[in-house]
Order: sequence, then C-alpha cells, then structure tokens
Amino acid sequence: MVAGPRYAALIASLPASVPFVGPEVQERRQGGSFRARLGANESIFGPSPAVREAITRAAADVWMYGDSEALALRSAIAEQTGTTLDNIVLGEGIDGLLGTLVRLLIDPGDPVVTSLGAYPTFGYHVRAAGGVLHNVPYRADREDLTALCAKAWETRTKLVYLSNPDNPMGSWHDGAAILAMLDRLPPDCLLLLDEAYLDLAPDGTSPDVAADDPRLIRMRTFSKAHGLAGLRIGYALAAPDLIRAFDKIRNHFGVGRLVQAAALAALTDTDWLAHVRSETQIARARLGQIADENGFVALPSATNFVTMDCGRDGDFARKVLAEVMQQGVFIRMPAVAPLDRCIRVSVGPKADLDIFAAALKDALARL
Amino acid sequence: MVAGPRYAALIASLPASVPFVGPEVQERRQGGSFRARLGANESIFGPSPAVREAITRAAADVWMYGDSEALALRSAIAEQTGTTLDNIVLGEGIDGLLGTLVRLLIDPGDPVVTSLGAYPTFGYHVRAAGGVLHNVPYRADREDLTALCAKAWETRTKLVYLSNPDNPMGSWHDGAAILAMLDRLPPDCLLLLDEAYLDLAPDGTSPDVAADDPRLIRMRTFSKAHGLAGLRIGYALAAPDLIRAFDKIRNHFGVGRLVQAAALAALTDTDWLAHVRSETQIARARLGQIADENGFVALPSATNFVTMDCGRDGDFARKVLAEVMQQGVFIRMPAVAPLDRCIRVSVGPKADLDIFAAALKDALARL
Repeated sequence: MVAGPRYAALIASLPASVPFVGPEVQERRQGGSFRARLGANESIFGPSPAVREAITRAAADVWMYGDSEALALRSAIAEQTGTTLDNIVLGEGIDGLLGTLVRLLIDPGDPVVTSLGAYPTFGYHVRAAGGVLHNVPYRADREDLTALCAKAWETRTKLVYLSNPDNPMGSWHDGAAILAMLDRLPPDCLLLLDEAYLDLAPDGTSPDVAADDPRLIRMRTFSKAHGLAGLRIGYALAAPDLIRAFDKIRNHFGVGRLVQAAALAALTDTDWLAHVRSETQIARARLGQIADENGFVALPSATNFVTMDCGRDGDFARKVLAEVMQQGVFIRMPAVAPLDRCIRVSVGPKADLDIFAAALKDALARL
Repeated sequence: MVAGPRYAALIASLPASVPFVGPEVQERRQGGSFRARLGANESIFGPSPAVREAITRAAADVWMYGDSEALALRSAIAEQTGTTLDNIVLGEGIDGLLGTLVRLLIDPGDPVVTSLGAYPTFGYHVRAAGGVLHNVPYRADREDLTALCAKAWETRTKLVYLSNPDNPMGSWHDGAAILAMLDRLPPDCLLLLDEAYLDLAPDGTSPDVAADDPRLIRMRTFSKAHGLAGLRIGYALAAPDLIRAFDKIRNHFGVGRLVQAAALAALTDTDWLAHVRSETQIARARLGQIADENGFVALPSATNFVTMDCGRDGDFARKVLAEVMQQGVFIRMPAVAPLDRCIRVSVGPKADLDIFAAALKDALARL
C-alpha cells in the first residue's frame, strides 16, 4: 500500500486557494501581453536609478548569504523612522510578515477582526492558522474604525487588521483618528496597521505613537512608492518583545543580500521618492479627469491607485472591467458589495493612462 | 492597563532561537572582516557571468511583482529534471520550503525523525510547528538509513528528514540505498530528501524514483553550486497532491521577479556548473592535502566542503576552530558528539584555501 503523506488536521480542511491571481497568470489566460499594467498597484515609474546601480553592484556578491540581522538596512530604517533596531524586523514583503504575525498570535478557533473587502492575503494567512475572520462593513468607502473597535470588544479578538491608507478604496484616516481607535480597543488586542501606501499619503496619516507601544504593529513595504515589488521586502515596526517573537519562527535568512542592498539604496534616495509622489499626484488628477469624462466618480486617494465609482451595481462594474481587460488593459476591482460598484486603476505615466482612457471609452461604448 | 499582544499557545513556549549565527553577525562580534569566508558552504567561485547579466537586465523591471506561478523557471526545472510543472514548487530557499512542509504535515505533539547533528534549521521549523524531534545517531559519519527506518516505525512518524549528500559530514549514500530505504519506511511516512549538495555529488546519488511517488519529496537549491545564496531560491519536487498543498499556506509572491530571472540563467548555464564542479574537485583535493599536512583526516566529500577529523575530542576541535577564527578565517564545525571532533571547511579558490592553510598551521602551533 502506498498511502502518501498525512497532513496536519488544519491543512486537510483548507482549500488550495490563491489569494491573488497574478498579472502574468491573467495574461496567459487571456493569451496575450497587457498593453498597460494598471491592476497591481505597482510603481510604473520604476525604481530609483540608485537602486538599479545598487542591484548591478550587488550582482557579483550574490554567492554570499545576506546578513541575517540586516544591520545596515535596519539602521537606516531606524534613523528614518525615529525608532531603534529593536523595533524593526524585515520580511519577504508585507505578505510574508502578515503570515508570520498571524502564526505568532492566532490559535485555531481564535477570532480575528478585519473589514469586509479588505486585503485578501491577510484573510488567507488567518485561515492558514485556523483563525476565524469577523468582518465589519466599510462605511462611506472607508474602513469603519468605530465598528472595528466594537467587533474587537464583542469577539475579544487578539488581532485587528486595518490598512491605512486603505486598499482597495484608496481612502484614509488621519493619524489622530487611528490613535483614538487605539485607545478605544481592548488593551490586550494588537492593532495591525498595514501602511503599505503611507509614502503616498498626506503628512500625519500615521499615528503619533511610540514604536515601543505594545498595542500596535505597523507594516511597511518597498513594493509601492519605492518600486521594488519584484524584490519582496517589507518591514514591521513594533515593541521589542513582539519583534523578538518573530525570531521564534521566521525564515532568518529569508531576505537576501541583494534585496537588502536595493532597499537601502531606495530608502536613501529621497529625491526619487519625491519624484514618485509628484508623478502620483499628476496621475491621480488625470485619472480623476478620465473618470469625469466617462460619467464615473473618482474617489479621493492617498495611494498609488484611484478607485472609480461606476455609478451602478457590481454586475455593471464587472462588465466594465471585463471590457477594459479585453483590450489588454490590466485593472482590478473590489471583490464585495457595495465596494464592487467600483473599478480600481493604478497610477502611471501619461502614456499608460491614455491607453486606459481609450480602452474605457471603447468599453462603455460597447456596453 | 496596557497588556500587549497575547501569543498563540505554542509560541509562548518557544525560545527566540536563531538556527544559524550568520557570518556578518560573527564578524561584528569579532570586530573585523573575515580574510577568508569558508564557513557557510557558499560558492566562492561566484555566480555564472550569465547570472550577473540577467540580474543587471532585470534591475529595471523590479517594480513588477514576479510571476506567482514562475512558469518560465518551473518549465526549465521540469525539463532538466524530467518532471512536469505539477511536480514543482518554488520557495525562499530550502529553509523556506522546509518551514512550509513542516506546517503542512505536523500537528503539535507529532513525532518527527532526523539524525542527531543534522541540519539545525529543520529542527527549528519542527519546533516552531510544535513537533517533537526523535534523533538517530550517525553511523561511521554517515546518516544511518537503517536506524532512521527503525525510528520511523517505532514513532509512526509522518516525516523523516535526510540530507543526501549530508551536511555537516559531507558523506553520502547512493541512490539505490535511498530507494531501498523508501521501500522499508512505513508507507504513510513522507521521506524529505534534502538534496542541496546534489549538483556536486557523483552521478547516481539521487534515487531513481518517479516524481509522482507520494512517499518522497526532494528539495534542491540555487544557493550552493549555482552560487545564488544571497538571492534565496530553492525548489521542491514531489507528487502533484503534495505540491498543490503548498498553495494552501505558502507566500505566493515570495519568490520575486529578479530572483526567478537569475535562477533561470543559472539553470541554463551548464558550462558554469561544470566549471564549479571541476573547481570543487580541485579544492577538495587541496583541503585533503592541508588536512594531511596537519595530521588531520579529511573525510570523503560529495559537497562543496570538506569535513576534517581533528583526531581528538570536541573540546580540541572547538579550540582549533576558535584559533582559526581568531585569525579572521571563517569556518564551522558540527555541533554534537562524536561529529564534533571535526571542523568543516568550505571549498574555494586557491588563495582562500592558502589563507586557511596558514591559519590552521599557526593555530596548531599555538595549541
């Protein structure tokens, strides 16, 4: 008899789910390359020239494992964020950090609180740890801080997830509102604040809370404004006890040497970040104009994408999306009602947005 | 009251352990750079020139997430290994794949079988999943296949770990012996075969078993012969059911775009691999000569390192290692008796081995 492996109890109950169908997978399904890639909130403005140089320089050294403590990069992050080395852990993108954090806190059956329609990969990791998701609806296209707090008390959850600025709506709360939320949450509940888009948000969007505060962990990434999505690196800021706990289970050499070098170059090129912020504002305005011209409403955005209310229901927005995709233009949309009345378009250079504008016009003409 | 996070039950019981103290961490502790880096079994011969070109080319594209299905790379692996796409999953080095596999199989309290002194990172991941390690001693400096089988039946384990060729001893079994072991294991026990060093081993070291066989999973890496340790990429070959199970919990975008491109370039540059194999043989011979000259015995090696029996006990070998390290030469040694009568030295170019030879001679003169 050949029986094959016996899986862990939890694993046997999980579907083999993929939280996101990647752009290349979609291209293969469609049978052609995208003419514009505006669906994954990547930074089409590219990485900084300094990053490209750092990568080329690092190419000869890839035979060496990376520094498992990533001292140079973590020191630079500490300096830029006004924290200490003990407040910082790196990971394979925020996705990797989310998976590790969930495993640190969640036992099978534990409740976890998030917003209905928020980042699917967070929910994926919660299910992989056996956690039970409790979702709170958005209110006026923003995550509802009051409802999240109420649900946290009701479930006595260990963990609340909030993205600020938010994906997929592009909305945000100011730091003072987050701080007030923190004071209203149960004191033994950890607030996981996903700040992936913070570099593109107004000043004051991050709460003014000491990194040593044990109630909060912030996660940030080099995948968005810094343009390093293809390298997979992010970091978490939290109290030293929680940061040390990552060392119990994380892949210690998971963030490689070349990636550390590239992220350090990105972090120190503040001119490039200013350039990307400026280009992002121009592109948001252009996307607002395109929405207008087609009878859609562009929602305010503190991110590198603009979510457009198509003015009808989810079925209509799905048709719009399908027609735009049909023309080789990659965009996405929120998954659940009522958010799914919208489509979501990443910012990018004028040429890419012009392709989208033409595709949207054609799509609506056909519908 | 500010309480801070509540950890999962298992996590609270784990130490914040680091399975390996990295070279940079050791350099900082010693207060200086290593003159020769011969302790981490990296490929000092470097990556192929084609890899360096691929990395430079990929630098402009790092703003894009990698293909989550890694179709181009997995297709090349399938072709080279005579398997299909359904047999292959990529991960952030073998370390990353080990962690995911252990989580797929092991419930808290489950027994796991390995050799006493084998790869510490495997044990680290087992503890992180709540598994209980059952260790079998080496026999004549090789992992003991018969004893591993007996322990598997005794514990009715779900999982046996075997590295072949072996780290830290450099020894190996031929593929026929592994195949015979597979037939003697409980049929519902998975054999995890870590083939990190396979590229440097004699032909026939890997068992001739179909990739669809549900009793076996093989893990391979680009960190050793291919010289990509600093990029973190490895892959697993197994039956489609098991490969699909990885999709339940893995970080789907964890292996980035640039890393995929570099690994593809490495895989297709078979000339470079032949060069590294040839240099490795020369270096092994040189290390054998150095051992001889100092009254040590070089053990036979099918890897990119040579383990040298210092001829006395662990305390003596630890003194040798400390004296060599004192001179800025990074080497390592096995952690447990009786293997710890040895030191372990990675292969490398002549200049590096000459530095080691001089350091060893000085070390022994002082002892």
